[in-house]
Amino acid sequence: MKPGIEELEEKGRAAKAASRRMAYLPTEVKNRTLHNISNDLLAKQDEILTANQADYKEAETSGMSTAMFDRLMLNSNRLKSIAQDVLTVAALPDPVGEVFDMRTLPNGLQVGRKRVPLGVIGAIYESRPNVTIDISVLCLKSGNAIILRGGREAIHSNSALAKVVQQASTRAGMPDGAVQFVENTDRTLVNHMLGMNDVIDLIIPRGGANLIRFVKETATMPVVAGGIGVCHTYVDKSAEIDKAVAIAFNAKVQRPTVCNALDTLLIHVDVAKRYLPLVAVEWAKAGVEMHCDERAMAVLKVNSTMRLVPATDEDWGKEFLSLVAAVKIVDSLDEALEHIEHYGSGHSEAIITEEYGAAMRFLNEVDAACVYVNASTRFTDGSQFGLGTEVGISTQKMHARGPLGLKELTSYKWIIFGSGQVRP
Amino acid sequence: MKPGIEELEEKGRAAKAASRRMAYLPTEVKNRTLHNISNDLLAKQDEILTANQADYKEAETSGMSTAMFDRLMLNSNRLKSIAQDVLTVAALPDPVGEVFDMRTLPNGLQVGRKRVPLGVIGAIYESRPNVTIDISVLCLKSGNAIILRGGREAIHSNSALAKVVQQASTRAGMPDGAVQFVENTDRTLVNHMLGMNDVIDLIIPRGGANLIRFVKETATMPVVAGGIGVCHTYVDKSAEIDKAVAIAFNAKVQRPTVCNALDTLLIHVDVAKRYLPLVAVEWAKAGVEMHCDERAMAVLKVNSTMRLVPATDEDWGKEFLSLVAAVKIVDSLDEALEHIEHYGSGHSEAIITEEYGAAMRFLNEVDAACVYVNASTRFTDGSQFGLGTEVGISTQKMHARGPLGLKELTSYKWIIFGSGQVRP
Repeated sequence: MKPGIEELEEKGRAAKAASRRMAYLPTEVKNRTLHNISNDLLAKQDEILTANQADYKEAETSGMSTAMFDRLMLNSNRLKSIAQDVLTVAALPDPVGEVFDMRTLPNGLQVGRKRVPLGVIGAIYESRPNVTIDISVLCLKSGNAIILRGGREAIHSNSALAKVVQQASTRAGMPDGAVQFVENTDRTLVNHMLGMNDVIDLIIPRGGANLIRFVKETATMPVVAGGIGVCHTYVDKSAEIDKAVAIAFNAKVQRPTVCNALDTLLIHVDVAKRYLPLVAVEWAKAGVEMHCDERAMAVLKVNSTMRLVPATDEDWGKEFLSLVAAVKIVDSLDEALEHIEHYGSGHSEAIITEEYGAAMRFLNEVDAACVYVNASTRFTDGSQFGLGTEVGISTQKMHARGPLGLKELTSYKWIIFGSGQVRP
Repeated sequence: MKPGIEELEEKGRAAKAASRRMAYLPTEVKNRTLHNISNDLLAKQDEILTANQADYKEAETSGMSTAMFDRLMLNSNRLKSIAQDVLTVAALPDPVGEVFDMRTLPNGLQVGRKRVPLGVIGAIYESRPNVTIDISVLCLKSGNAIILRGGREAIHSNSALAKVVQQASTRAGMPDGAVQFVENTDRTLVNHMLGMNDVIDLIIPRGGANLIRFVKETATMPVVAGGIGVCHTYVDKSAEIDKAVAIAFNAKVQRPTVCNALDTLLIHVDVAKRYLPLVAVEWAKAGVEMHCDERAMAVLKVNSTMRLVPATDEDWGKEFLSLVAAVKIVDSLDEALEHIEHYGSGHSEAIITEEYGAAMRFLNEVDAACVYVNASTRFTDGSQFGLGTEVGISTQKMHARGPLGLKELTSYKWIIFGSGQVRP
């Protein structure tokens, strides 16, 4: 057997054993763990930042991009913010143990469902060391054991942070083995881990599109992963123009590199002449390049300060992840709905309208994880939605959709209280 | 392209298109569809039974087993019972459109989840033609389009029943394409169907273990399928003996060929001498063969009317699906819990006890889809649990666990009502 594999399997068995006891752990122990983690992140700041600098130096030698550096870097402020987020999750209600749909059947049986943890969650992630804390905290609070496998580029940081989580857990009374960290960054271990469906109940990949695709294709257990976010904002004929400008600006500019940013702006023809020049001026100031269909181009062509490009077929349904937006004028709400049905990725879609009927049709007919009326798609986020934080955003329909928080890391079991009933 | 494949893909596209409109269909249309189906099953009884006789005759020529004949056969009484079940589902609340977790965030956004259909469900099934009706009815009521692919041995019956469903749907105002039936029973079409993850959101296999394994391994979309049911009943030291005899008898004998029947009986050593002879006498009358561990054998060996066999290692964790039970004496609740953890398949497990603490520990610590106190595991069933009927019983933890009814054929989307909010 390859070196490292036996150790990995031992970690799997230990996590599984711990998960059995974690299923009925008092909330107090879980919250104490989170408080310990939050405290230790600040108390052990020097250790953590020294480890982070070791990663940082190795990255410098290997010539990492600025964006990668930014994702890798920890500092005192970032640690404070992470520690604060941990307390937010600690303050959320414990999802485990909730009993729902409970009722008494005519034969006297009481039947209901009780929320339970999933078991063992495997996390495979890249670069950002804060993922070590985010995922650990959500998993532990929801009673799941965890196997963490971070990327080579952040191994020192991840190792230091995993130690914080492990020590904090032990001190709080979590079962041994609840938090497993894979020190060995050999990539063949990832393949082996993705085959361990006897001990791992769910895999969460966090990182670039390549990592996510690889995990989805290789894993033998369920995977929840965010998909592509091709997000549309449709400005209806009854839209309030100022609101529509502010929302489109925010959705495109506030953080253009993420999945919930605006990709395509659809505008009803009746408001195009009033609306389009206004949003274009604001976008131009922020450096947004607009890929316009012919009609939008005709409305805007007078203005030479803007970066206008004629849209091609490739622009529709494209996730830009940058300061680029596709712009299209449509003749009706129906045309907007058809465009979104055809090109959307089922992530986040918005309508800007003052007409009740249009709002309700959009909410009903758009098939996406998050459907908005009169708000920026940038809100699609676990902490914005009040889930504390998130392990990811799901664009699949099975199990959970949209931001994945504590409840989405659980399952349920049916519990049946009888008094001797037999089936006739 | 192989003949049949183009037609199958066309059916897929038609189902997908229909599913978009089915997502926001009034409950009235769905219920009217179900009432039409129920009526037509009786009104078109002659047609259906003639088709069934055609299958029956072909089966006779090919030398089918009696059990297969029984699964294949329809008659007037069976049709009446199926028609009645359809009305039960019609009377259940529509799961689609339920809004839950709705709240107002500090910024004024109203965020909540709205229950929606999954989309298109593919059903791949064998022998029992009633599955055509069961699955269609649950899918249509939950707003899902359906692609039905039944087995060759029931093709005439399935075809007649699918026609009933299609005509009833059209008459009620369902979108065209909501119900697709694959007439061509060429097996390569099944492989192709399992690759159509662009149009099919979920596959439900119904049939033997081979079919289910094949579908699980081949499908490129999510699959929900029942697993093996290795079910334990543990008779605690505080069990009421008569109750424990009646429950173990029912769990083993009432229908031994199904997944929720008792496989292993665990008995606390303190009650073994009082309890075991009583249950053994009852089981012996019903022809149950007992595979006993050494201690159970020692308790029972005086009685020669029983069919007693010394248990081997293979008996623990075995799904017998027949009048055979493994029997083991344990020293404690802990030993019973460990045995179940090690050998159970996560289906249905029961404790018989009068002690509150033992009941609560069992409910908390046993990790299975259905956990019972003082009742027969035979109740694990959608219609017994009040779900109307079921498309199967899931032993997986993701998405849904235990009997799968209407709600389990849905997903949700986040809906967000704003008034111009942008993310700071």
